[in-house]
Amino acid sequence: MKSALVLLALLCCALPLLAAVQLPTPEGGKAEIVLRSDKAGAPRWSLAIHGGAGTIPKDIPASERDAYLASLQKALEIGRGVLAGGGTSLDAVEKIVRFLEDDPLFNAGKGAVYTHDGTHELDAAIMDGRDLTCGSVAGLKTVKNPISLARLVKERSPHVFLIGEGAEAFAAEMGVERVPNSSFDTPQRYVQWQEALRKEKEAKPKGTVGAVALDQHGNLAAATSTGGMTNKRWGRLGDVPVIGAGTYANNKTCAISATGWGEKFIRNTVAHDISALMEYAGLTLQQAADRVIHQKLEKDDGGVIGVAHDGSIALVFNSEGMYRGAADSNGRFEVKIWE
Amino acid sequence: MKSALVLLALLCCALPLLAAVQLPTPEGGKAEIVLRSDKAGAPRWSLAIHGGAGTIPKDIPASERDAYLASLQKALEIGRGVLAGGGTSLDAVEKIVRFLEDDPLFNAGKGAVYTHDGTHELDAAIMDGRDLTCGSVAGLKTVKNPISLARLVKERSPHVFLIGEGAEAFAAEMGVERVPNSSFDTPQRYVQWQEALRKEKEAKPKGTVGAVALDQHGNLAAATSTGGMTNKRWGRLGDVPVIGAGTYANNKTCAISATGWGEKFIRNTVAHDISALMEYAGLTLQQAADRVIHQKLEKDDGGVIGVAHDGSIALVFNSEGMYRGAADSNGRFEVKIWE
Repeated sequence: MKSALVLLALLCCALPLLAAVQLPTPEGGKAEIVLRSDKAGAPRWSLAIHGGAGTIPKDIPASERDAYLASLQKALEIGRGVLAGGGTSLDAVEKIVRFLEDDPLFNAGKGAVYTHDGTHELDAAIMDGRDLTCGSVAGLKTVKNPISLARLVKERSPHVFLIGEGAEAFAAEMGVERVPNSSFDTPQRYVQWQEALRKEKEAKPKGTVGAVALDQHGNLAAATSTGGMTNKRWGRLGDVPVIGAGTYANNKTCAISATGWGEKFIRNTVAHDISALMEYAGLTLQQAADRVIHQKLEKDDGGVIGVAHDGSIALVFNSEGMYRGAADSNGRFEVKIWE
Repeated sequence: MKSALVLLALLCCALPLLAAVQLPTPEGGKAEIVLRSDKAGAPRWSLAIHGGAGTIPKDIPASERDAYLASLQKALEIGRGVLAGGGTSLDAVEKIVRFLEDDPLFNAGKGAVYTHDGTHELDAAIMDGRDLTCGSVAGLKTVKNPISLARLVKERSPHVFLIGEGAEAFAAEMGVERVPNSSFDTPQRYVQWQEALRKEKEAKPKGTVGAVALDQHGNLAAATSTGGMTNKRWGRLGDVPVIGAGTYANNKTCAISATGWGEKFIRNTVAHDISALMEYAGLTLQQAADRVIHQKLEKDDGGVIGVAHDGSIALVFNSEGMYRGAADSNGRFEVKIWE
């Protein structure tokens, strides 16, 4: 056994470009060792991000398309920096989501949609797959980065889920950055709100943001943040702050962040259902995500991003497009909007 | 095959008091038909209720014990009346929970615990297993029966989850009964609050209420309502309004209502996990509930009540006691506090 280990060590050092090696084991069977061509022996990390799913016309101006792709690329670089440097998946997803919250292109933080009353109400959640600890915040009006308050709920309160004025009071105690509600305003969301007001209906948003990651320590994490539906009323929450619906992470299975028609995602407990299909039915992440998004949900409901405990990535949606990106330690690095 | 069916029909009519009949099948095997001694051939219904789990000293005064048992019995009778009369599981669980909300013994509606600020903030959820439609409300201050507002969210809004002042505005539009927040006051909860204030901590509640039912039409439903944790702050929500954590119903599997330490139930997506263990791992309701409550959660976290699509009932808890009751079309009718 020892000699096999020595041989393995030698192979890892000497043959970094070899794709796969067959070693005889003492028992006479075969042990397959897959060496990665780029970083042999380096612990694996994986990362996926989204900036919302929905009807995204393929003929949007090239400048707009490029702006989205550039922002997704930056977000992905931020996450890659954390994970390639040995940082935690939790830090990676929080940093990515903070960046996307600050970017006015997306429906989270700056750039959040308008409520029926012309304000902004923000929701976010974060979950640590290592121990299932999590934090959710909903109905925030002045917290600049809701995802970081969600993390503080997870780590500095005995609770999981804080809402409204109470959550704002917690934010004050934690000393996080607060801003006037109007600082989340953007001209494009204002136009969308005016249009929704004229039609007297709430409009499905596109632009919720999220990130999921596996770090080199083998831990999964998920984070999601949103402004919800344009013209929303009655303190409406969607799936984002509902652990198990829009956000979930479990080292046994996967980390999931969802985007789409929140009500459908809550009813179908989408994120936990994907995890349960892996844990109890033996499906892969891709199979589980396909089953839930394409068979349980309906066309145009939205999509999910997921990273599994083995580092595999799934980017699945049943809408016309989903702003998304994926990167891993094998050198994958890509951002996309449509198929 | 036809003759076997005729024989079966004859047996059902002629031998209503027979407990079990062995019929030879065309294949030479045996088909066991269990006839119910009381209502042979009547469609099955089942019902379970809870009034909270926690540390319930076995030496509580007999008068107090009897008051709880009498109230649980009344709640069970209300549900039995609906279900035996052919009513829906959704009506049954809503009526039961309304009754328990109005009863000052329980931590829901009248009798809700006090928040850190000396007010009451109420949460509730209801779910229809037929189509996974559901409604959740949280942070209510003036709605007399939160469970009925949750049902209106499900049936009269395009949404699933409404919180705080927005949910109150929806209540106003719906014209449901509103009451001053102080009308939820009770002397015993005031004492608990004062004690929690002195100890400067939040206290685990006991007394969340819930009901799950299978009706004669084969539909499952679940409902849960609570005042949350004594001395709670920061707009804290527990598992009750989180679909998949404290409340879940799915005709494929089961209806679940949970009670206990809400944070743990959210992290473990308890209600949906029980359903998923049935759907994907082939466990019975009892096995699934045992697995989640006794293996995934820890001692004193709380418990669940569940009814499965086949009418079986599970009442599982890992705390010292759980106020609970069960009834079905086979004549079962029981209320209990401890083992």
